[in-house]
Amino acid sequence: MDYYKASLEMHEKNKGKLEVRSKVGVTNRDELSTAYTPGVAEPCRQIYKNPEDVYKYTIKGNTVAVVSDGSAVLGLGNIGAKAAIPVMEGKSVLFKEFAGIDAIPICLDTQDTDEIIQIIKNIAPIFGGINLEDISAPRCFEIERRVQELVDIPVFHDDQHGTAIVVSAAAINAIKVVGKKLEDVKVVINGAGSAGTAIAKMLLNIGIKDIVVCDKFGALCREDSNLSPAMMELAQLTNQRLAVGSLQDVIVGADLFVGVSAPKILTEEMIDSMAKDPIVFPMANPEPEIMPDLAKKAGARVVGTGRSDFPNQINNVLAFPGVFKGALTARASRITEEMKAAAAFALSGLVSDHELEEDYIIPLAFHEGVADVIAEAVAKAWEENK
Amino acid sequence: MDYYKASLEMHEKNKGKLEVRSKVGVTNRDELSTAYTPGVAEPCRQIYKNPEDVYKYTIKGNTVAVVSDGSAVLGLGNIGAKAAIPVMEGKSVLFKEFAGIDAIPICLDTQDTDEIIQIIKNIAPIFGGINLEDISAPRCFEIERRVQELVDIPVFHDDQHGTAIVVSAAAINAIKVVGKKLEDVKVVINGAGSAGTAIAKMLLNIGIKDIVVCDKFGALCREDSNLSPAMMELAQLTNQRLAVGSLQDVIVGADLFVGVSAPKILTEEMIDSMAKDPIVFPMANPEPEIMPDLAKKAGARVVGTGRSDFPNQINNVLAFPGVFKGALTARASRITEEMKAAAAFALSGLVSDHELEEDYIIPLAFHEGVADVIAEAVAKAWEENK
Repeated sequence: MDYYKASLEMHEKNKGKLEVRSKVGVTNRDELSTAYTPGVAEPCRQIYKNPEDVYKYTIKGNTVAVVSDGSAVLGLGNIGAKAAIPVMEGKSVLFKEFAGIDAIPICLDTQDTDEIIQIIKNIAPIFGGINLEDISAPRCFEIERRVQELVDIPVFHDDQHGTAIVVSAAAINAIKVVGKKLEDVKVVINGAGSAGTAIAKMLLNIGIKDIVVCDKFGALCREDSNLSPAMMELAQLTNQRLAVGSLQDVIVGADLFVGVSAPKILTEEMIDSMAKDPIVFPMANPEPEIMPDLAKKAGARVVGTGRSDFPNQINNVLAFPGVFKGALTARASRITEEMKAAAAFALSGLVSDHELEEDYIIPLAFHEGVADVIAEAVAKAWEENK
Repeated sequence: MDYYKASLEMHEKNKGKLEVRSKVGVTNRDELSTAYTPGVAEPCRQIYKNPEDVYKYTIKGNTVAVVSDGSAVLGLGNIGAKAAIPVMEGKSVLFKEFAGIDAIPICLDTQDTDEIIQIIKNIAPIFGGINLEDISAPRCFEIERRVQELVDIPVFHDDQHGTAIVVSAAAINAIKVVGKKLEDVKVVINGAGSAGTAIAKMLLNIGIKDIVVCDKFGALCREDSNLSPAMMELAQLTNQRLAVGSLQDVIVGADLFVGVSAPKILTEEMIDSMAKDPIVFPMANPEPEIMPDLAKKAGARVVGTGRSDFPNQINNVLAFPGVFKGALTARASRITEEMKAAAAFALSGLVSDHELEEDYIIPLAFHEGVADVIAEAVAKAWEENK
């Protein structure tokens, strides 16, 4: 199926993918006077008296903003606000279809970090959460951190944390399949952008200890004084054994390879140099670091990609709907590390031990009840650790 | 019916009034790959190549932002962003129900004029129009003007222009009922805020020549050097005969009184002092400048208010849905004076000559096809004058 052609036709036919609907009738004078003036003055007065009532009388508690500045859209790069709209509409569609959350795309005509932060803070009143999307690194780190300091609702950069949660869930099950333990495995992550950084932090968070992150110049090592502040922070969290060299050098003996980089970077020789029963997640999209069949041929025992046409699709849609649903239900003011870890373990737990196998380490996108299971775990983690 | 109680219950039961829905299915892998990755990359690429395609492939062409800073909400005053949400949701409901337009409430946590202008400019990419709502005067004038300079989509402050269009339509028909001519009548407007200012300009725009605007200090007259810049601008447009004095002084001999001020300001004696067959539109809400029965008793021939429980309700919902529908259809880059006048005459024309009478000068809110008739006139006026 030619998805590009189909997508273009579908978008043109429907003029985009979203609509806003009223949940209440306004077909006669009484209904109009209840939904609007004069009746509407009363919920306004109540919220003015008690701002928390905004959750009681408005859409806030179930509404999320999907915010992008169009600076790093899919693999298309910095295509700007207008061209980013189809993706943000799509994300909003997924929020509704997978978790019943009303999501509103906000595409910003600025790429100034300070301005973006102020805008998000200022549009926050009607939203119960902020999903940041397709914002380039390292700006995305600062934007997420500073917006979260300014608002009392959760801020979640899905390209970082959503990806990290799903990779973590896949890693938990893949490591189980090959009979190893989280605390024993050696991991190499190729790609030190927003996704790579978040994956590294999250894998540490779930109990993995030995992680080396590579960028195009090789392994990040804290003894390299040329690193940018963001890279240095990452180097200090990882690579305890101070490995240096190229991907080819540091992948020797690794148990798990995670690729969030570029096509064809991983060779059969590299896989051959990994530890016994290697696990590889080449997730560059649409073309992975190595094609799954080639990876298998080279000896990979478990392979996961971002693609839906191979087994083990590591797909963000498995995480963010449930994470937000849980956070909104618990009315969490942020997404904690505990909540993300709970989401990863809940997601991995959806594959039962008797179902678990090399080609089934992660549920399919349409696996029933995923969002609810994750939401429950996330809400519980907030309650226990807030 | 107790609308306050009913409204509170309705808002709590439904947790607000809006929802966001998908217009496309995402129930299997092919649909997901068409609505989202990888297919969605193609409309993104097309829009990047040709920005005008944003109207072809996204919701922009039928989506309006309802923006408020909560500084002047209904008669409640400056209640802030959160407490304003029920009104903005209500407005969005009306956009959908009366014109099929998808409207998204944006409630801003800032009342800084410059900041509001920049935010609206920066969130504009996904919207086909901006409806400003419940922003206090005189800031609303500057915000509307400067945002319109920065964006290529129509910006419309409904409290000003929507009100002015409906008042103008009512005035056209009321003046016809009493057998007078637009160019001959004397008008007194009480209230020089955003609504009063817009009404004055609009009545001039449709052919009325003699208008005096009063604020609480009396008639605005250009010879008064104490006037603020906004009041001076208004005084220079109106009051050609340089009338001075209180409302009581200047209403003598007037044919039409328009009140956008406060309860009980208009007395029976004042109506008695007006010209033969006086028309009064006491529109303060919920309690008008004079109650309709009292106005009638004092000799008013035609009375219109903002209330739905008396005849001749001058209700904004008659105008803004059609105005935006017409502007979006024509893809107008702004709302011109010609478009507003066209809307007023189209609205007044919906009451046919044989239906027209003292108690029926303006269609009811639920009159069928109002938005379409106005939209057609507005689109035509754009095409002819752009």
